[in-house]
Amino acid sequence: MEVDVYWIESEGVRDMSFIRKPLADCVPELVATARGDLPATLVITGGRLVNVCSGEILEGMSVAVQGGRIAYVGKDVSHMIGEGTRVIEAAGRYIAPGLLDGHCHIESTQLTVTEFARAVLPLGTTGGFFDAHEIANVFGLKGIRLMLEEMRGTPLAAYMQVASCVPSAGPEFETTGASIGPEEVAEAYTWGEDVIALGEVMNFPGVVYGDSKMLGEIQATLRAGRVVDGHFTWPADDWRLPVYAAAGVTGDHECVTAEDVIERVRLGMYAQMRRGSAWHDVAKTITAHTEHGLDPRRMLLVTDDRSSESLRDEGHMDFVVRHAISQGVKPVTAFQMATINTAERFGVARDIGSITPGSCADMILLDGNLADVHVVMTIAAGVVVAENGIMTASLAPYTYPGEVLASVHLLKLPVAEDFVIHAPLESGSLSTRVIRVIENHVETEELILDLPVAEGRLQVGNGLCKIAVLERHKGTGNKSVGVVAGIGFHEPAAIAMTVAHDSHNVLVIGNDDELMAQAAGAVAEAQGGVAVITGTGTTLFPLAIAGLMSTQPFEIAAAQSAAVSKALYDSGCTLNYAFMTLSLLALAVIPTLRISDKGLVRISPEEGIGLVSLFV
Amino acid sequence: MEVDVYWIESEGVRDMSFIRKPLADCVPELVATARGDLPATLVITGGRLVNVCSGEILEGMSVAVQGGRIAYVGKDVSHMIGEGTRVIEAAGRYIAPGLLDGHCHIESTQLTVTEFARAVLPLGTTGGFFDAHEIANVFGLKGIRLMLEEMRGTPLAAYMQVASCVPSAGPEFETTGASIGPEEVAEAYTWGEDVIALGEVMNFPGVVYGDSKMLGEIQATLRAGRVVDGHFTWPADDWRLPVYAAAGVTGDHECVTAEDVIERVRLGMYAQMRRGSAWHDVAKTITAHTEHGLDPRRMLLVTDDRSSESLRDEGHMDFVVRHAISQGVKPVTAFQMATINTAERFGVARDIGSITPGSCADMILLDGNLADVHVVMTIAAGVVVAENGIMTASLAPYTYPGEVLASVHLLKLPVAEDFVIHAPLESGSLSTRVIRVIENHVETEELILDLPVAEGRLQVGNGLCKIAVLERHKGTGNKSVGVVAGIGFHEPAAIAMTVAHDSHNVLVIGNDDELMAQAAGAVAEAQGGVAVITGTGTTLFPLAIAGLMSTQPFEIAAAQSAAVSKALYDSGCTLNYAFMTLSLLALAVIPTLRISDKGLVRISPEEGIGLVSLFV
Repeated sequence: MEVDVYWIESEGVRDMSFIRKPLADCVPELVATARGDLPATLVITGGRLVNVCSGEILEGMSVAVQGGRIAYVGKDVSHMIGEGTRVIEAAGRYIAPGLLDGHCHIESTQLTVTEFARAVLPLGTTGGFFDAHEIANVFGLKGIRLMLEEMRGTPLAAYMQVASCVPSAGPEFETTGASIGPEEVAEAYTWGEDVIALGEVMNFPGVVYGDSKMLGEIQATLRAGRVVDGHFTWPADDWRLPVYAAAGVTGDHECVTAEDVIERVRLGMYAQMRRGSAWHDVAKTITAHTEHGLDPRRMLLVTDDRSSESLRDEGHMDFVVRHAISQGVKPVTAFQMATINTAERFGVARDIGSITPGSCADMILLDGNLADVHVVMTIAAGVVVAENGIMTASLAPYTYPGEVLASVHLLKLPVAEDFVIHAPLESGSLSTRVIRVIENHVETEELILDLPVAEGRLQVGNGLCKIAVLERHKGTGNKSVGVVAGIGFHEPAAIAMTVAHDSHNVLVIGNDDELMAQAAGAVAEAQGGVAVITGTGTTLFPLAIAGLMSTQPFEIAAAQSAAVSKALYDSGCTLNYAFMTLSLLALAVIPTLRISDKGLVRISPEEGIGLVSLFV
Repeated sequence: MEVDVYWIESEGVRDMSFIRKPLADCVPELVATARGDLPATLVITGGRLVNVCSGEILEGMSVAVQGGRIAYVGKDVSHMIGEGTRVIEAAGRYIAPGLLDGHCHIESTQLTVTEFARAVLPLGTTGGFFDAHEIANVFGLKGIRLMLEEMRGTPLAAYMQVASCVPSAGPEFETTGASIGPEEVAEAYTWGEDVIALGEVMNFPGVVYGDSKMLGEIQATLRAGRVVDGHFTWPADDWRLPVYAAAGVTGDHECVTAEDVIERVRLGMYAQMRRGSAWHDVAKTITAHTEHGLDPRRMLLVTDDRSSESLRDEGHMDFVVRHAISQGVKPVTAFQMATINTAERFGVARDIGSITPGSCADMILLDGNLADVHVVMTIAAGVVVAENGIMTASLAPYTYPGEVLASVHLLKLPVAEDFVIHAPLESGSLSTRVIRVIENHVETEELILDLPVAEGRLQVGNGLCKIAVLERHKGTGNKSVGVVAGIGFHEPAAIAMTVAHDSHNVLVIGNDDELMAQAAGAVAEAQGGVAVITGTGTTLFPLAIAGLMSTQPFEIAAAQSAAVSKALYDSGCTLNYAFMTLSLLALAVIPTLRISDKGLVRISPEEGIGLVSLFV
């Protein structure tokens, strides 16, 4: 990986810029430093080293750094200290490799990459494998490229995955802003070695049944020497999981049970165990190791989707590792699951994931018990970037081009009448398909309910809401309206959002047609965002970057995100991380019932994906 | 890896040829097979699968193969069986991944690659990482290329390492037939992805102290995306081991103690535990895991150097794995150390090292207890190549060019007078450096003995032998003569050999100048080989290929090798695998005292390498 990383120290005394140089270029200086002929740029003395290679905690260890890489790990680094060497006395604190997120969508934080870095570096995350799948659905390869360039400007060891399923389920099921196929995938790998994998191949039925686009993307990936990440939601014992594996898929984060983990690992995959804001899978999946004794080397901890509020209030990978330990994993094993296992999965263990000579100097210092995962200092690429939870390096801002900041193209501003569901009869009742939300899970249920009809209009009441998708990429005017259960509004309320996986059209949910129209109008006017409208007013979280990400600093975005959560909660929608859960109701590849701008989409292990009618 | 592999079935009914195609090219057919739309070429039903990914033994498992790769692993493969599918009923036998040798010099078997393959495939070895270091010292890159091409013609998943230290210790210390530097190393990687690593970097002092050739070779390797294998013989707690690691070295087989293993793994290396013919390191090194609890994921089992007799009488990797288990390693863990760990170390775990969909169909069936490692069938690249210890596939012969078959260039045939050691005094005694052989170890000791002088000639008696090296590559006439202890001859005897690590000049050891001359003459006349001459006659093991390898089939070569061993034993040289131990006495990089055509060479951790005088 040859990536320029720049930052400016917060003290303002001097600007710093540096490069994550390939190891080959560093070898002579590293060796000279290690043998004492060149002063280290930084040393850490007297720590308890979390050695993820050997699975040990080693007392009294010191580390010497030359530029961006580790030159020495041992008991004594005194011969490497010279003028200009920054000496950090660990004083018995733990020294661990920086944490790696093995599967993460930065867009889910609603932060820019730079603000994401500001948020997670103080928490000990120094690298990750990011799938810019959301912006890809809006701006295609161009969107991925922009986020990659922003990544390269942060201190993170950031690797990009190429979104594989854009659109997620084929243009017959939804309208997206862009499309990616085998040629685009191959092109992305030419951008650099930091474009490292094919992002989660959600169209697993397509893979199993030989879809040429999906197989073509996988083949392009393997030919480029990259790995393929998966997304398989049929049960662990489905006979088609090995078929999916035969295509060359070697990682999957859609594990919700121990069996999901066990079967994937048995088939040669790396099982990614997820603790997102809204999906809490680690507690069950980790039992593959803690109860079933599975070799943990191919088990990873990941976040997948975490909101900015979650980052602020719970944490990032530090939180996930702590949580895993609390489930009974040995601390050093949990650290392996967020460092070396992750690096090995992506073939970059020579560069990151351990504190060993030659590796990038991405390290954290931890106070208290190791199980507390209490990060007090973060070093990225050899520089102290955060101390005691505060960034000590300020990051250069990155500006997105104008077209990305104006991405909401509706044919017209919506009105209440747009949300009326016309029935094929004047009055009576109709057997209606209803999407049921399940708290803390990605899947939905399909309910069939008899709903009343009056004046030719479906009556949606008794705690049910309407749910609508308005196409926003091409101004087609496409629109569909359905019914959803489990939202919980106890007063007239509506939410609209341009974050609506995966096509990110405008998703509107509400129990009042007029409020729904107002909410949709608010996000259209803001060129993207989330708007909650109730009797007490409007709460807006503007997301002007592709309709997905905030232009604001982390702290402000987190506050705005929290305000949305509060508005939802106050109006009765008490789902855990309600916004994130709701934003997935349009995700037309995960069972069972979803909605797109083209209508209701039903997904089942037996029958695959298909558009279905609202009325049965 | 795109490698043509050809063979002809032994039944003679049909010729078969096949290609180890890249996974990308196989994906559509693998997926079609796995879902039942294309009959498998081979299935194995009802076995106990040794799952090295999960660390489990799974009952009632079946495997389906399409061509050279595994299409399916699961409980039921019945839907993949069609006309033309070969069905093998495992009937409860174990199915394990084919064994991999993580560090091996094929030349040490004195067999051609093809005969090596014939010897080890029935024993369950289906792949390896070979360092053609010996032929490289005679013929340079050309020699490596020839062995690579021969490899590509076998069913083995064979990967080549580029010899790094040719000559091993610099031209000032010895004369070799060739020289390899950074440019040659870079060139070798352009031959194909199966040229996978820089072979053991024995000049570790050079690396630590910044030798530009050694660092250049390492840099060329890292730039080509390959890994660097090491060879570090200073003690595990030497402060310079981390310096060596900082250069990018990530594997090392010079582990003789548990601490050697532990320190290497802690520094991010893969520790290779060796059971060669003459070096028995596993029993001690394995305690890093069995007693010290080290995470075994970075521990590998390797052979390094095994003779054809060892292959015949003990086995190959099957023997090493069995031995490791006998030391208390869980069987599945021992298999990991010879399969997935090895594949991961070299970055090829997507292709080999596990029985998982998409992997190469390199598998073995085992009878009895798993701990017995009793291989009854070997499948390589999807074809049954051996059953019950017998090859069922016959391999195409490979012919080396004429110049390789005539590589012994002496200035003149030696005579007895050539082995006289002239003293700087007429009579009395001289304090003399003596090389002492240590049974079953690579290292030697340096003894300082007072030896008598008569008529101006050093008198070498009392069980001591003379040891001489005659340059044979360039006909320079270079020659040196020294003294060696521990050979054990109890009658007049001499041995000469063109296998004399690493420069492979003619090494002669004996207690009778005339017999020494005769032995040297015999190997010169044979254009290479080993000759033992005693009162009862001459025993010759001709090695015409570069003076290193036999042109004969495995069985004949093993018998000839055994005859040499017997002749040595009968004359009193009872060292375990005496020939192999003796052949290393000229290895001018391993402590302590060695001999080359330029004189005595002394190696110490403190002072490095240097020529020293015979008389102190």
